[in-house]
This record gives sequence, structure tokens and C-alpha cells, in this order.
Amino acid sequence: MKEFQLIEHYFRDHGLNRRDVELGIGDDCAIVLPAEGKSLAISCDTLVENVHFLSEIPASALGYKSLAVNLSDLASMGAEPAWMTLALTMPEVNEEWLTQFSQGLFEAAEYYGVSLVGGDTTRGPLSITVTIHGQVPHGKALTRAGANNGDWIYVTGTLGDSALGLDILLGKQEVSSDYKGYLINRHYNPTPRVLAGQALRSLASSAIDLSDGLISDIQHILKASSVGAIIDVDAIPLSTSMLESVDKDKALSYALTGGEDYELLFTVPEAQRGAIDTALLHAGVKFVKIGQICPGDKLKLVQDGQPYQIEQNGFEHF
Amino acid sequence: MKEFQLIEHYFRDHGLNRRDVELGIGDDCAIVLPAEGKSLAISCDTLVENVHFLSEIPASALGYKSLAVNLSDLASMGAEPAWMTLALTMPEVNEEWLTQFSQGLFEAAEYYGVSLVGGDTTRGPLSITVTIHGQVPHGKALTRAGANNGDWIYVTGTLGDSALGLDILLGKQEVSSDYKGYLINRHYNPTPRVLAGQALRSLASSAIDLSDGLISDIQHILKASSVGAIIDVDAIPLSTSMLESVDKDKALSYALTGGEDYELLFTVPEAQRGAIDTALLHAGVKFVKIGQICPGDKLKLVQDGQPYQIEQNGFEHF
Repeated sequence: MKEFQLIEHYFRDHGLNRRDVELGIGDDCAIVLPAEGKSLAISCDTLVENVHFLSEIPASALGYKSLAVNLSDLASMGAEPAWMTLALTMPEVNEEWLTQFSQGLFEAAEYYGVSLVGGDTTRGPLSITVTIHGQVPHGKALTRAGANNGDWIYVTGTLGDSALGLDILLGKQEVSSDYKGYLINRHYNPTPRVLAGQALRSLASSAIDLSDGLISDIQHILKASSVGAIIDVDAIPLSTSMLESVDKDKALSYALTGGEDYELLFTVPEAQRGAIDTALLHAGVKFVKIGQICPGDKLKLVQDGQPYQIEQNGFEHF
Repeated sequence: MKEFQLIEHYFRDHGLNRRDVELGIGDDCAIVLPAEGKSLAISCDTLVENVHFLSEIPASALGYKSLAVNLSDLASMGAEPAWMTLALTMPEVNEEWLTQFSQGLFEAAEYYGVSLVGGDTTRGPLSITVTIHGQVPHGKALTRAGANNGDWIYVTGTLGDSALGLDILLGKQEVSSDYKGYLINRHYNPTPRVLAGQALRSLASSAIDLSDGLISDIQHILKASSVGAIIDVDAIPLSTSMLESVDKDKALSYALTGGEDYELLFTVPEAQRGAIDTALLHAGVKFVKIGQICPGDKLKLVQDGQPYQIEQNGFEHF
């Protein structure tokens, strides 16, 4: 146990020290000071070796990604990142691994303004649970409910890159070395759309982050909002690396069913459409309209006005 | 993955629904409303099978204990329990096990006023991480720092029962059937001293919960407060079950070095000593003075005014 208690010193006096942290790591609890007029957004995600990540993942990428996937949950609610706890279970103490893991973690934490305020390090099969805390003005959180008939559907970034990156890592796809690095990086180091989420708070009617793939994730919005949707697959944003590596139908299959993009999908009422460009100007990410909310409860994919049949390539969320 | 998503329904619409939970399980984040004038206390603990608990532990006890050990951290800060997240990693979906685990968890959650607001269920080796959130008036959190020379040292309840209970389970100790159930229950179902912690907020100068054993845990107070301590081992509260099961030195060994009692150890200035009885009247737990804070940085154990040599029985925190 002693050995594992020592690990805490890897995390204790590092990283960002927010002024609203009254007491950080080192006591029975952390004490933080929530901002007045704001609600608290809380989310937690566990990453288990050989279930959520390959054993080969660089430790720094794993540290970064452990926080990034949680930040993406805050982004989809329009919340501002604040504090995190880290539960790290490891089979053994590996100082080299810990150095790189904590570097990756703190890189993301500092960039997005998160203080690590507590955690637990234990011996066991490799697994990481991050609980993230963000703040959002009262009543302004974006949810999955709220999409209305006629609202436009948007996504940020490009879709499918992470899934293609994973297939490259698994040896299921070969791509030119010109694109390989980009695609693998999109899998290892996804960019949570934190600023975009905040910018959308008063404009979007619903939002979700894309973790399991567009087709799967949009169902949550349709169900929570009691609506249907129609998506023009030709409008789905695809990266150059994707388009140069696989044919169009394969690319769309990655984009529609591939997981771990961590882009935002959101809906916008017609009246707010003009305001989106300005609002997202400083969010550092492109976004594009891919469809529209319609009556019913189904998702329809179309191409050139005809129903689109997705290529079954057997892709599974890792 | 689908199978595991279904598990969320075991936890989603069950248990307490606090009025300050604006949005519970089911979106990307939970949204809760912190109380004005209060700070937020956050702690997380991971329990790993065969590291922190025996495989034989009943699922309901594991569910209860997963929350109880976290509530104990809130108790030691004087915080009022509010919200929790649960990261549950399981090798397979076992409905019987899940039913019992969630029953035990919600039993503790409802009793202590905690809403489960989020979590993640994943496939992998059995492991549970709970992140607990409590609230405490600004500046009133009890910490490990703050003990001063002359302050009196108190503990709640009786010590060592949990460690003896574990040794019974491990077959290392045999005890009469009159006491076996009580001792095993003290190991499986520890009682976090939540009300006592809150009652001590304006009275105690420091506090900690006893998770690793008195000798180990008090060091955190001595270090954080830059003081020493003297403890009269004959003042240490021992249960009848303990005293009837093992000899006095063995009992003291359990009490001093045994882990997982989850009682509170706290220090009280002489000026506040008279107020303690009244403050703890409704906390539902006995407490007793076992020593005093002194200059230096060492812990001294005494019996009849002489240094006490602890019996080395090789007990190790499981």
C-alpha cells in the first residue's frame, strides 16, 4: 500500500491550481468553492485496458484521453471545466509510465483549466476513472431533450477519423504514411469541443457528443426530444485524410458508425441559425449543417434525395 | 456494450431524488445545484476485488460499503452528503449480483441523503469507484491541520472490530458464535459517522476518519498540524465482542493497527471540551477521550504512565 500512496505525489503538487480550490489533494476530501449563479455539471467515465483502449497506447495519450473524453461530456452540456478526480488502478508501479501518463493528463488539464483535486491510486488491473466537474449558468445547460421539428442538425469537425485511426492501429486498414499520423492522432488525442459547447448555450436546442458514432448517438436526442431526423450523408464532413484513404461509402460508414470522434452534434432552431456563425467564430472548430429534425421518431439517411443504405463493414466500437 | 448500457437501468430511476438535482442519470452530465454559502467537498475511493475486498463479500455489503467508505471521508470533514457517481466495472452481467449490490448501495444512499447522479458501467475485472460530493458551510470544513498543543484527542465508537472481523473471515481467528456476527458485520457494514462529523464542525480543531488504523491515520494529523500526541492505550474504546474474543494486548493491537473502522478521530481544544457532550448528543455514537496533543512530532503510547509496546501480530491492511 505504501508504494501506492507514494504515487499520489506524482499528482499532488502538479498542474493547475485554480483559485476556487480551497483545499486540494492531501486531506480526506477536497474543498472547492462553486461559483454563485451556476449549476454544477458532473460526469464520470471509466477506461479499462483491452476494453476501451489498446495496451499499446502511449501512456501520455492515455492520460490525455482519460480527461478529454470527460471534457467532451462537459462540452456537450455547455459547461465550463473546473475540477476533476482521478481513480487510477495499476498492476504495478512503473515510474516511466506514470511520468508520461501524468504529463498527458496535466497537459489536457492545464489547457482546459481543470484542477485535479483528489483521487485514489490502487493496485489492480489497469483502469482509469475520471470524474469531471464543470459549471454552467442556471438553466443554461444544453441537454439531449429540446430538439424541435424543423430545427437544423449540425456537427463540428470531421467524422470517422478516430475509427479509421483505430482500424489502422489494429492492422485492419492500411493507409498512406501521409495520413496515418493524423488519423491515429485523432484516435489517441481527440479534441473535446469545450468552447463550442459554451458558445452554443443560448443558441442550440439540444446537443450531444459523438462517442459511439453518429447513428447511435443521435438516437439519444431523438428519444429524449421525441422527434425524428433526416440526414444528408453527402453533407457529413469528412477529412482529407479519410477521403484519400478509403472510398466514399467506406468513409461514410466510418463517419456514421465509428466511435470516439468526440465532436458535438447539436440542433439549432431556424431563428438562431444566423447567430451560430458569430457565436462559434472563436471556438476554433468548423461546423456544418447535415440535416434537419422532423416529426416521428426515426432517423432517415438520404443521398441525392434517395434513402441511403449504409455499408455494413462490421465496424464495432472497440 | 449494449448489455452494459442496460445495467444503467438498475441505477437510473432508483433511490433518493434530491430536489437540488436538476438533471440526473441519462444525459452526458448530471446537473446539480450547489447550496449558496457552502463549499463543496469531493472525495473518491476505489475498491478492487482481492485488494480491498474478498471475493466472498455479499454483493449487498459491497454496495453498502462502497458508499460508506466515501461517506466516512465526508464525515471527517464535517460535510453533509449530497451526490455521488458510481463507476462499476464487472467481468460479466450477473442480474442477481446487481440486484443485491444496488440494494446495498441505495440503502446507504437513502439513509444518508445521497442521490446517485451519474456513472459508468464497463466490462472488466471487478472494481468500484465512488466519487462522493458533500456540502459544508464556507470555512467550516474540518481538516487534518489545526490540532494544537494541549488539545484533547477523541475517537468515536470502538476500535479494531473491523480488523478482527476480517481475520475471522480469513480463518485467522476463531471466536464464539456470540460475537462472530457482530464483528463480521463491523467489517462488512461500517457506519460512517456523518452526523458526528457535522456536529464537530465548530468544536474540533482537526479530524480524520480511521481507515488504515489509529497509529497510521493519526500521523496525518500530526504531520499536517506539526504536533505530537500521547495516547493512553487503556482509554481506547474496545467492544465487548473484542474483549471477550481475544486478550487485551491482542485487542489493543487490532485497535491500534487494524484498518477499516471508519470511526472518527478528532482533537478538541480545552475551551470546547464541555460543549462536545451536548453537540454529539444526537449523533448516535459514543465517543471517548484517549489522549492529548503535545509538542514535537511523535506519537507516544502509554499504559499506566509507562511506554506501551504494541504486540506485533503481523496484521496487515487487507
